[in-house]
Amino acid sequence: MPKLWSETIESHRREVHDAILDTAAALAAEYGLLSVTMSQIAEKTGIGRATLYKYFPDVETIVRAWHQRQVADHLARLVVARDRAVGDENRLVAVLETYGSIQRHRVKAHRHQPHGTELAAFVHRDPQIAQAERKVQQLIRELIDEAAAAGAVRNDVDAGELADYCVGALSAASRLTSQQAVQRLVAVIMSGLRPLEGSDERMSS
Amino acid sequence: MPKLWSETIESHRREVHDAILDTAAALAAEYGLLSVTMSQIAEKTGIGRATLYKYFPDVETIVRAWHQRQVADHLARLVVARDRAVGDENRLVAVLETYGSIQRHRVKAHRHQPHGTELAAFVHRDPQIAQAERKVQQLIRELIDEAAAAGAVRNDVDAGELADYCVGALSAASRLTSQQAVQRLVAVIMSGLRPLEGSDERMSS
Repeated sequence: MPKLWSETIESHRREVHDAILDTAAALAAEYGLLSVTMSQIAEKTGIGRATLYKYFPDVETIVRAWHQRQVADHLARLVVARDRAVGDENRLVAVLETYGSIQRHRVKAHRHQPHGTELAAFVHRDPQIAQAERKVQQLIRELIDEAAAAGAVRNDVDAGELADYCVGALSAASRLTSQQAVQRLVAVIMSGLRPLEGSDERMSS
Repeated sequence: MPKLWSETIESHRREVHDAILDTAAALAAEYGLLSVTMSQIAEKTGIGRATLYKYFPDVETIVRAWHQRQVADHLARLVVARDRAVGDENRLVAVLETYGSIQRHRVKAHRHQPHGTELAAFVHRDPQIAQAERKVQQLIRELIDEAAAAGAVRNDVDAGELADYCVGALSAASRLTSQQAVQRLVAVIMSGLRPLEGSDERMSS
């Protein structure tokens, strides 16, 4: 088989794979995870049932794969935001604002759908998802470490605790209705991260 | 029936009711909500199955009642903490530290039990629970409003947004292993809440 042909097949497989994930997540959010069937997913994706089973064994596996793709996409967006910004503090702000924006849109997409919460509760029980979400915390932790070394962030509290504080506080972004409000939230979070006044000796030691 | 006698019956009913909730929550966390039966709950509580059905129709109702009791207890603890403290800022700090402590112990109790997360996911889908948790946010919001009026908290961001920020950031307390760490987290949160320097005109206007 010529190489180009196999690349076409691979890219076709990837497209079908992605379309299955999109369909399954939409159906699960609309009708509830427990009521979605493989037949429904196949029909709405526009493929045969036998083809669907070549890709995935059951609905749960599809929904998990969908959420893992989501988390990977989010992480990639955070890395892009980090690498675009210049300076320790700007990098941290850019990542926090991007993560806040992700939180804001994530829950918004669920809000108008009857079973969005059920879907969210299900995927968050997946240990692989928990691990992926730890990567977000790690990325923020590294930026806090760098900003603390540069004196832009307090160093009297462990960077891991501060990263947990950021991630927790950013969950509040799910209630926000504008990106301006996300920027206000990040400004409040950043105020919490600033070095304490009169702690200059500690900062330079 | 003399009054005292009816009071004894009422207090006995309350004790049985509470014992059922404790047993059910322990069994659900250990074996999983879906595998717990009414018979198991009756046996472990030390009452007959028929008696149990006089109190509750099914396991789900029991687990929901248990969690509603938890949330009511938490709210009562926050009110006590608030009313004991003197001064706007101290009241806010006292409530944030108490809520942080509740978060820390809540998840700790689940951590070592195989189905704690499943249980948590289930009860958090209950709209009544969501409503009760809004009350915590409201209590914090009122304290922020008062502290802002006294100039101890920033007033350039809506008090409701700041309360959401506090509740979100305090979810990070679930990872903390000491009350000292909770106090550090609250200190960071309070730094985020302080009025910005050079915004005195706005504060007094």
